[in-house]
Amino acid sequence: MLNPFFKNEGPYKFSQILNDLNLKVDETNKDLNVIDIKDLQNSQSQEITFFHSKKYKIAANNTKASFCITTKNLQGELPKNCIPILVDNVLVSTSVVTAKFYPDSINDDFDNTVNDINKTEFNNKVRYGKNVLVGQNVLIGSNCSVGHNTIIEKNVIIGNNCSIGSNTIIRNSLIKNNVRILDNCVIGKHGFGFFPKQNKNLRYPHMGIVLIEDDCEIGCGSTIDRGSMSNTSIGKNTYLDNQIHIAHNVKIGENSIIAGQVGIAGSSIIGNNVKIGGQAGISGHLKIGNNVEIAGGSGVIKDIPNDSKVMGYPAKNIRDFLRENRWSTKQQLLTLKQKFLTMLK
Amino acid sequence: MLNPFFKNEGPYKFSQILNDLNLKVDETNKDLNVIDIKDLQNSQSQEITFFHSKKYKIAANNTKASFCITTKNLQGELPKNCIPILVDNVLVSTSVVTAKFYPDSINDDFDNTVNDINKTEFNNKVRYGKNVLVGQNVLIGSNCSVGHNTIIEKNVIIGNNCSIGSNTIIRNSLIKNNVRILDNCVIGKHGFGFFPKQNKNLRYPHMGIVLIEDDCEIGCGSTIDRGSMSNTSIGKNTYLDNQIHIAHNVKIGENSIIAGQVGIAGSSIIGNNVKIGGQAGISGHLKIGNNVEIAGGSGVIKDIPNDSKVMGYPAKNIRDFLRENRWSTKQQLLTLKQKFLTMLK
Amino acid sequence: MLNPFFKNEGPYKFSQILNDLNLKVDETNKDLNVIDIKDLQNSQSQEITFFHSKKYKIAANNTKASFCITTKNLQGELPKNCIPILVDNVLVSTSVVTAKFYPDSINDDFDNTVNDINKTEFNNKVRYGKNVLVGQNVLIGSNCSVGHNTIIEKNVIIGNNCSIGSNTIIRNSLIKNNVRILDNCVIGKHGFGFFPKQNKNLRYPHMGIVLIEDDCEIGCGSTIDRGSMSNTSIGKNTYLDNQIHIAHNVKIGENSIIAGQVGIAGSSIIGNNVKIGGQAGISGHLKIGNNVEIAGGSGVIKDIPNDSKVMGYPAKNIRDFLRENRWSTKQQLLTLKQKFLTMLK
Repeated sequence: MLNPFFKNEGPYKFSQILNDLNLKVDETNKDLNVIDIKDLQNSQSQEITFFHSKKYKIAANNTKASFCITTKNLQGELPKNCIPILVDNVLVSTSVVTAKFYPDSINDDFDNTVNDINKTEFNNKVRYGKNVLVGQNVLIGSNCSVGHNTIIEKNVIIGNNCSIGSNTIIRNSLIKNNVRILDNCVIGKHGFGFFPKQNKNLRYPHMGIVLIEDDCEIGCGSTIDRGSMSNTSIGKNTYLDNQIHIAHNVKIGENSIIAGQVGIAGSSIIGNNVKIGGQAGISGHLKIGNNVEIAGGSGVIKDIPNDSKVMGYPAKNIRDFLRENRWSTKQQLLTLKQKFLTMLK
Repeated sequence: MLNPFFKNEGPYKFSQILNDLNLKVDETNKDLNVIDIKDLQNSQSQEITFFHSKKYKIAANNTKASFCITTKNLQGELPKNCIPILVDNVLVSTSVVTAKFYPDSINDDFDNTVNDINKTEFNNKVRYGKNVLVGQNVLIGSNCSVGHNTIIEKNVIIGNNCSIGSNTIIRNSLIKNNVRILDNCVIGKHGFGFFPKQNKNLRYPHMGIVLIEDDCEIGCGSTIDRGSMSNTSIGKNTYLDNQIHIAHNVKIGENSIIAGQVGIAGSSIIGNNVKIGGQAGISGHLKIGNNVEIAGGSGVIKDIPNDSKVMGYPAKNIRDFLRENRWSTKQQLLTLKQKFLTMLK
Repeated sequence: MLNPFFKNEGPYKFSQILNDLNLKVDETNKDLNVIDIKDLQNSQSQEITFFHSKKYKIAANNTKASFCITTKNLQGELPKNCIPILVDNVLVSTSVVTAKFYPDSINDDFDNTVNDINKTEFNNKVRYGKNVLVGQNVLIGSNCSVGHNTIIEKNVIIGNNCSIGSNTIIRNSLIKNNVRILDNCVIGKHGFGFFPKQNKNLRYPHMGIVLIEDDCEIGCGSTIDRGSMSNTSIGKNTYLDNQIHIAHNVKIGENSIIAGQVGIAGSSIIGNNVKIGGQAGISGHLKIGNNVEIAGGSGVIKDIPNDSKVMGYPAKNIRDFLRENRWSTKQQLLTLKQKFLTMLK
């Protein structure tokens, strides 16, 4: 869950945490230190965790956390040495506390550590354009090129033989080798995730990163949001065309081809060797199998098994879709044979 | 109709106006001054107005304007002290004259008054990145942050606690408090409005502004066009995801949530508490009620009453849509329950 | 096929070419010079060409090329003085050789010849913003304006009375007179064209340019990719709204109007006086006739004859579409009358 991109601003006194959650002071424990927030399995002594669903009962029974945000009904599952913090909405309260420890995971203000690349170690290691900005602790491999006005924010890691275009912004990202990211992209900003609330929505932290594997290409004007609790990832040799939006926590497999203006909503998982035609949309939290072909303009609102070809909105088997639309047999054959490719090129 | 963003380049002699409209010289009045252009109700002596439809007969009867662009058939409705200017197409001629008084409302050339923020009063008032440009008469409240390469053009007003991303351009806009505008946005350029004409379309003026109320978020790569005769506005606590396009004169209510790649065509009005899934499109001049949910990928081509849930293209009641598409009862329940959220996250 | 934007890095020895194609050395001819690559009709002595389909038999019979990439089956059609180079996949091998002669046609690294416009001849000829970059051999006509942070790469030609916005990137493009390109556009990057290959796709060269005729407007955040073997072109007085994607080799006619977020896939040809509503998508390799109207949100997957009005996905006659969707007669009339315009404004 945690990673080097987000700095822990703790420790905090337990009383400060309770105060932020609008809870009563706990006189006995108020001066205890709370040093970090992690999930049930990974948290340790002096750390805070959260437990919001019976599904995680076993992890709760065994947590080593000293504090746990939970509900009245669930508190009985926690070990004796873990102090329960009783709230109405565990996830909302967890957001508040996570944001307190990791404020950078919730706001996306510009990186104020950047310097003109001229004044950095990349000075004679990278081919770069005018007005390139690089943040602290950035790593860039050999034989890379970074275009004009591009901003590579702190802690970003870029492998060898990468080409980054102009006017592009990269933050909270790990980019492997031979990757091309074209112009005007925004990679790694926080996802569109928050708890809707009248008058003032509550943003939740995005501590995941964007992970782009070897040999990928990301087209101009694309946006890839970083994950909230897991990463957003693009598999090896997957190519994205222009103006694509990949939401937070999405995971795309290897050797996939995604045409222009496609949008993939949060937390969906796309397999290997998948082809997606232009302007198709995929709802959130779906699983698209391997070797799937999705025709351009389709709207996918349920899981798609391996080796399927789908089309339409809601997307269905492509032959069914064309038959229902009284596509003639000749047109249909032509479509089945050629449509995916022509949509992709 | 008018506002401080567009400078009046008048006055002009009446003869100059007639000349620009390719009309015959009016020897009696040719040397009269024309100082401004306004609508029928607001115009005063020495000003020019326009009257193109019987709907506005009463306003025409009572106008205080000294000049009025109108047609042969309508001229009888004007008071005696108002000189009629007879044309074939009132709106086209009004565009020509408006553009003469307010050339900035028709061309969107870059703002040449900008300076590096280092050299402005915001120097030690705003947190800012590298290469930030700020135009004349800009106002920025307390505790704001402006990212690298961002351009805030003349007369823009930004409230307190706002965060503006990098590579973003803001012009002709009024932004209230606690607003976040992310990277690579263009806010306030003229709308896609013109009179189509063979060989040379005629652009019409856009004198409206973009108004963004408190607590909004605008995602990366979004474009919000300013209005033509009215404003484009985004209500309090409304969140827009990435790559959204909001056309001119659109008005969005409060507490609404709009997912990635949505497009809203010109002059549509969206209510409060509206949720719009990714890639949905809304035609122009429509009225979407309060508490409406529009599924991702839908195409809305008629008004939607309050409290409706719609899906499909053309968008219809979501249950009807799913039944017609032979969605199983189980799938349907799941979809009705979860789809909107998953599309939004 | 060739043009001044891409520099010929040849000549190469014949042995170097064979080596790059993983072919056996040709001891007799290995030291011959190969000076350029062209198609069958245009190639001359000492040049290499390619022949991959019987359709081009006559051109093959008459080619003046000294070398030809072809297959075992086709080699008999070549003249005696043309040395056949036998491969499995002619187009893949042609890509490899083309990329060798014209490496810039395959990679899109930033232009390292640019200078701040202050230091160029455009210094007092063009109105320009801050941080404008201009590459070598750029031509800009009279009365032009170029916004902040915009990059005009080498060899680009811009006519008179053009207005280029801020944060825009233009490369490999020829832009005529009275053209407006708004903010945050990317014009002229390579198309999304490659031979899919497990583990490492093979990009193919894009040697076409983007050609924008007189009086066009290109909206904010749009991307227009250059062609592969032919050009991508936008006809006179055609207007594009924001966030539009035009893929490689697309040709759009005159006086057309294309609303926001439309996508046109590779190699499609759009006629004159065409109106396309917002978010519509057009598949690749299609022919859309003159005076066609395509409703917003439609998905076009077959050719559309002149003077048609279509809607839906797959797009069909608009009356049929509305009838099938049980649109009432009154709604239908209203829709037929107003929908296109409202979608466009």
